[in-house]
Amino acid sequence: MSNFSIGVDLGGTNLRIAAFDEHGTLMEKITLGTKTVVGRDQVLNNMCDSIQQTSEKFRPSANLVGVGIGVPGIMDMPSGMMRESPNLPGWADYPVRAEIERRLGTPVILENDANCAALGEKWLGAGRHVRHLAMLTLGTGVGGGIVMDEKIWHGMTGMAGEFGHMTVEPDGPQCGCGNRGCLEQYSSATAVMRMAREAIAAGNAPGLTLVANSDVEFSAKEIYNLAVQGDEQAKKIFRRVGRALGISLATMINGLNLEMYVIGGGVSSAWDAFSPSIFEELRQRSMVYAATAPVDPLPDSPGASGQVEPGTGRKTIITRALLGSDAGLFGAAHLPMISN
Amino acid sequence: MSNFSIGVDLGGTNLRIAAFDEHGTLMEKITLGTKTVVGRDQVLNNMCDSIQQTSEKFRPSANLVGVGIGVPGIMDMPSGMMRESPNLPGWADYPVRAEIERRLGTPVILENDANCAALGEKWLGAGRHVRHLAMLTLGTGVGGGIVMDEKIWHGMTGMAGEFGHMTVEPDGPQCGCGNRGCLEQYSSATAVMRMAREAIAAGNAPGLTLVANSDVEFSAKEIYNLAVQGDEQAKKIFRRVGRALGISLATMINGLNLEMYVIGGGVSSAWDAFSPSIFEELRQRSMVYAATAPVDPLPDSPGASGQVEPGTGRKTIITRALLGSDAGLFGAAHLPMISN
Repeated sequence: MSNFSIGVDLGGTNLRIAAFDEHGTLMEKITLGTKTVVGRDQVLNNMCDSIQQTSEKFRPSANLVGVGIGVPGIMDMPSGMMRESPNLPGWADYPVRAEIERRLGTPVILENDANCAALGEKWLGAGRHVRHLAMLTLGTGVGGGIVMDEKIWHGMTGMAGEFGHMTVEPDGPQCGCGNRGCLEQYSSATAVMRMAREAIAAGNAPGLTLVANSDVEFSAKEIYNLAVQGDEQAKKIFRRVGRALGISLATMINGLNLEMYVIGGGVSSAWDAFSPSIFEELRQRSMVYAATAPVDPLPDSPGASGQVEPGTGRKTIITRALLGSDAGLFGAAHLPMISN
Repeated sequence: MSNFSIGVDLGGTNLRIAAFDEHGTLMEKITLGTKTVVGRDQVLNNMCDSIQQTSEKFRPSANLVGVGIGVPGIMDMPSGMMRESPNLPGWADYPVRAEIERRLGTPVILENDANCAALGEKWLGAGRHVRHLAMLTLGTGVGGGIVMDEKIWHGMTGMAGEFGHMTVEPDGPQCGCGNRGCLEQYSSATAVMRMAREAIAAGNAPGLTLVANSDVEFSAKEIYNLAVQGDEQAKKIFRRVGRALGISLATMINGLNLEMYVIGGGVSSAWDAFSPSIFEELRQRSMVYAATAPVDPLPDSPGASGQVEPGTGRKTIITRALLGSDAGLFGAAHLPMISN
């Protein structure tokens, strides 16, 4: 009898449930709207119903290893509670894990969604040949995760990996976390929009102004499209995205000396617009990167910072994520497989 | 028959060799001048002779577990070579480990000196009751090390823990590593001296000018003495030391979520002058610190950020090192005990 596990990605917009076999083959995937307006208890009901249905469907032919759930918030691992959950009102300081376990009658593993994404990329994505990696997820905010020797590094209370709140500019824009000049203030979709609005307000960004005033929804994606078309102000915004990432990655590389740093999340689609600035900063700012950079770096390549033998463990690779928005779902399903 | 190990601290000025039993009791300590002018081979001879003598003295009554050597430079662990050794001219890119092993006829463990200090503090110092810690060593430069679950975190090639080269101000003073505004440019003894000279040159630091022109050797220690006496410019320098440490520690705490961060090295003697600024920055800049700070923080206390139960693993402790200049020697001796 083969093994399978169930992964759940509980986002602010979508709730996705999937079953995977132990080799990472997707057996089933269900996508539901999270409908946070219907309230926490209804979302929990929907989630638990779908987990039960999926579980019952495959149980006759395979052994359920466990259930892993990725949640958008800072987890306090010992208590199984969310410390902060800006995208899920009413979920903070609520015993989420205990409540799900009570409804399902089986132990579940709750994990921060960015940590799940890092684990997913390690299992089946960009990092499948390396021993350890860190991942930055550039979305509405900037999340992060560290995987060392197949395991998520949680730190003392499960809050490790909050790389979105590394300080880039000590006197930079105020961040919701209380700090100033966090990476999230430069390299998230929200930051791209803020920088675009600032450029428009400064009155010297005709291209951005035109798009902002058009019928098209003004989004980070539209700003990227402008950059691709050669608009100088749009290009400058993505250079700032890359510069902040480069400064932060230099600190991470000097401190952690991992094999791989993976950049994912929606904003990573603009890789070719911001990645040259990452490598420019890294070469100047990280002596550890300089000592371990691939011999023939290809900083402008879309995929990676250089072609190296996988798993040699002697080169620092900076690369795009491979699994797109499924990384977190893959990682959540992998959680029970590595905890047993 | 009890066990003992030999630790060596190879500094730019002193070469210290010591034997410890497995409980950390010092059995013998030899201090020699490193005399780098006599050349690398002579230093290696002196070191190996002293190790042999110490080993022979205790071998009849105890079992030698191994030899650990702390070196002032960035180690490439797989090759056993030093990547950079500014304080030991001629040692970089030389097969140090292989040469010592050839002379002694026994395997040795070479380790970066700041990593040794972190391990020493974990074994017998400030961190003896915690599971994981990072240490910053504030000396001529700023070194660092991470100990997780009793082991030094080396990363891919042994270069992890270079926290002295985290970026504090992206456009700050040029650092020897190639980066700008590294922590080392604000919180090392060298940085304290530079900031004092800058204040004197600006013409508004009468106290510092007086000391600089006196017969006393102008040193970071003298600047600290001025700060203790209430000199505003000297106090301001140590506030900048603390601010940079606070900014860097906030990033480390958000990224790693360790139980303890230990501040050691010569400059840590000025703890009461710079530590209030650390805690001021941390409270604003690290949401993980804010969530895990001791309930009753005592930011101005000389020893720690708060009184908590040792080993509870729920509070982020920022504290001074306990072992002074012996931390590296203790840690070097501990290396063979944990690798076996």
